[in-house]
Amino acid sequence: MKERLQALQNFLQEQHIQGGLITSRHNIFYLSQFDYDPHERFVGIFVFANREPIFITPSMEVQMLKEAGWNKQIISYTDSDNPWSLVRDVIQGGNEINRFAVEKHAISYFYIENLQQILSGAEFVSLDDKLTEMRLVKDDNEVAILREAAAFADYGVKVGIETLNEGMTELELLGKIEYELKKKGIREMSFSTIVLFGQNASNPHGISGENKLKKGDPVLFDLGVKYKGYSSDITRTVFYDRVTSEFQTIYNTVLQANLAGLEACQAGSRIGDVDIAARNVIQAAGYGDFFPHRIGHGLGIDVHESPSMNDANDGILKPGMVLTVEPGIYVPGLGGIRIEDDLVITEKGCEVLTKFSKTMQVVKGDER
Amino acid sequence: MKERLQALQNFLQEQHIQGGLITSRHNIFYLSQFDYDPHERFVGIFVFANREPIFITPSMEVQMLKEAGWNKQIISYTDSDNPWSLVRDVIQGGNEINRFAVEKHAISYFYIENLQQILSGAEFVSLDDKLTEMRLVKDDNEVAILREAAAFADYGVKVGIETLNEGMTELELLGKIEYELKKKGIREMSFSTIVLFGQNASNPHGISGENKLKKGDPVLFDLGVKYKGYSSDITRTVFYDRVTSEFQTIYNTVLQANLAGLEACQAGSRIGDVDIAARNVIQAAGYGDFFPHRIGHGLGIDVHESPSMNDANDGILKPGMVLTVEPGIYVPGLGGIRIEDDLVITEKGCEVLTKFSKTMQVVKGDER
Repeated sequence: MKERLQALQNFLQEQHIQGGLITSRHNIFYLSQFDYDPHERFVGIFVFANREPIFITPSMEVQMLKEAGWNKQIISYTDSDNPWSLVRDVIQGGNEINRFAVEKHAISYFYIENLQQILSGAEFVSLDDKLTEMRLVKDDNEVAILREAAAFADYGVKVGIETLNEGMTELELLGKIEYELKKKGIREMSFSTIVLFGQNASNPHGISGENKLKKGDPVLFDLGVKYKGYSSDITRTVFYDRVTSEFQTIYNTVLQANLAGLEACQAGSRIGDVDIAARNVIQAAGYGDFFPHRIGHGLGIDVHESPSMNDANDGILKPGMVLTVEPGIYVPGLGGIRIEDDLVITEKGCEVLTKFSKTMQVVKGDER
Repeated sequence: MKERLQALQNFLQEQHIQGGLITSRHNIFYLSQFDYDPHERFVGIFVFANREPIFITPSMEVQMLKEAGWNKQIISYTDSDNPWSLVRDVIQGGNEINRFAVEKHAISYFYIENLQQILSGAEFVSLDDKLTEMRLVKDDNEVAILREAAAFADYGVKVGIETLNEGMTELELLGKIEYELKKKGIREMSFSTIVLFGQNASNPHGISGENKLKKGDPVLFDLGVKYKGYSSDITRTVFYDRVTSEFQTIYNTVLQANLAGLEACQAGSRIGDVDIAARNVIQAAGYGDFFPHRIGHGLGIDVHESPSMNDANDGILKPGMVLTVEPGIYVPGLGGIRIEDDLVITEKGCEVLTKFSKTMQVVKGDER
């Protein structure tokens, strides 16, 4: 974490910014390893061009913050203190500030108004892009955690497929998956688990409900876990009891698009070209109108983070970027197929983190 | 919803505010019945002193918004449009604005900077308190939904108690509860379910993990569901296999405090007196130092909303307020007991919405 805080301090110096404040939960975790949901309470890391960082937190969290590894200054307050007067002391304890950096997309206007009173006349500049850029390339420790998080996602899909039973609801099936993951020690999913049957899978933003499993349904699983602060995100689609030749064609098209996308994931390549490589496969098969979303997104502390993997992204893939590749074909009234992997860009290509088989599976209902 | 939007318009007129924007998910739901997580996309309701409200949304959500019942103007945009130029058109389509209302605690500074460019020179005033006040008293429809949400919470506790088995982990037990609720059609819990065994229950902010159930443990369940947009929140504590006389004393003290708190829930009474009534019971029993939190909180769309039920709150209870009463005693190294109910203030007292038994239960492990 020392390197991350140092990098931020260097940025402030280069940009002639005297101080800054980080208040979003995920960036606080990135900079301190302290993961805490403050609800309404003030929690933040102050960074300065020419001073050490200072963490402000409710006093009941000081012990946890130290256990997470924070060994720089901590200022704490109780419910009867006013944290903004502590903020004033912290800010006024250094040189005069005329440029102050905040996460403009995350910080509330209420916080800004309080800071304006303390920093009268200072210009607020953005920290969003710098932190996004810092989080873009993962270090070895982060990749190791993401690899484990992906293995839990694989396990979730395995449980889901083994649990399939005619007449069960989408919510029942996803509840079983989450239950088995909790038995393995997973406290939290990285997003609300999605299980979609039949026609419901034809909506790329479909919502799981009390829809019942029927023979012939495609079954789409989209899920991931939160593990040591990091997220996984896998999609697999299988068929229950039988599969039509049309669905076989669609499945094979999506699979080829997934493989083409993964093949395009090479250090030095253009990010948008991953989208184009996969999209070309789907368009060539005549399903171009049924793939309405980007090919994928960055993955890390947030389940959706930078880069956005759309065809217009001229960014360049770098070793250590962790991404998803998730082509899908959604035919209204029929159903949808999506196959999503997590991967890390390496020196030589990419390592796929999600390992669950992508071979088309028809799960027999009668054999149980 | 028509009445709620009208009340907001009246507020703007009274306060000489020409326009306002609501961007938080829960207040958008409160005003439109449209529940949508916009992630990074712009979604908001514009309200005006002298014009009808206008909803701005991504075009793919227009159908869902209409289905939710919104029958006023909608302006939609696609991913290739810039929503801020639509915002400009909307705002400039009316009278000049010199006071503009926003949710200062919820809106990001990025949004404010965009609005400042459009509303050059306008003063931003707060909508937070007005919306909090509007949501304080629930209507009959909201109470009916909250009553159903509470019944699902009761069911969760029932499942939890029936599932107790020596050696199981806290995460396994809470996973089973959530699984059974999903079978009943519940899509989402109102917060991460808490199950704490033994000494882990002595932390009022304890986190469920891989701690295993032992004979003699108190077992604390704190859970709730999200149902039709509204939250429930129940806590019950039982004992596994046996109970010491000290725990019996503590349990009875907490139960008496819970009952005293509920008895103090009367229309016209001071909110802080509910806390005091319960706290007096705990202090008289000599456990005052082990009850470190307020007696409860408002409950509605948010699981924690106004009012905060602490001893200093001079607000007055009104019929239709929905609240929790949740005294607890937490003895470090020993364990903790909390008993929490949801209630609605009525003309004559209160109706307790959570009905699960509060009689002390010792769940025998050997009888299974």
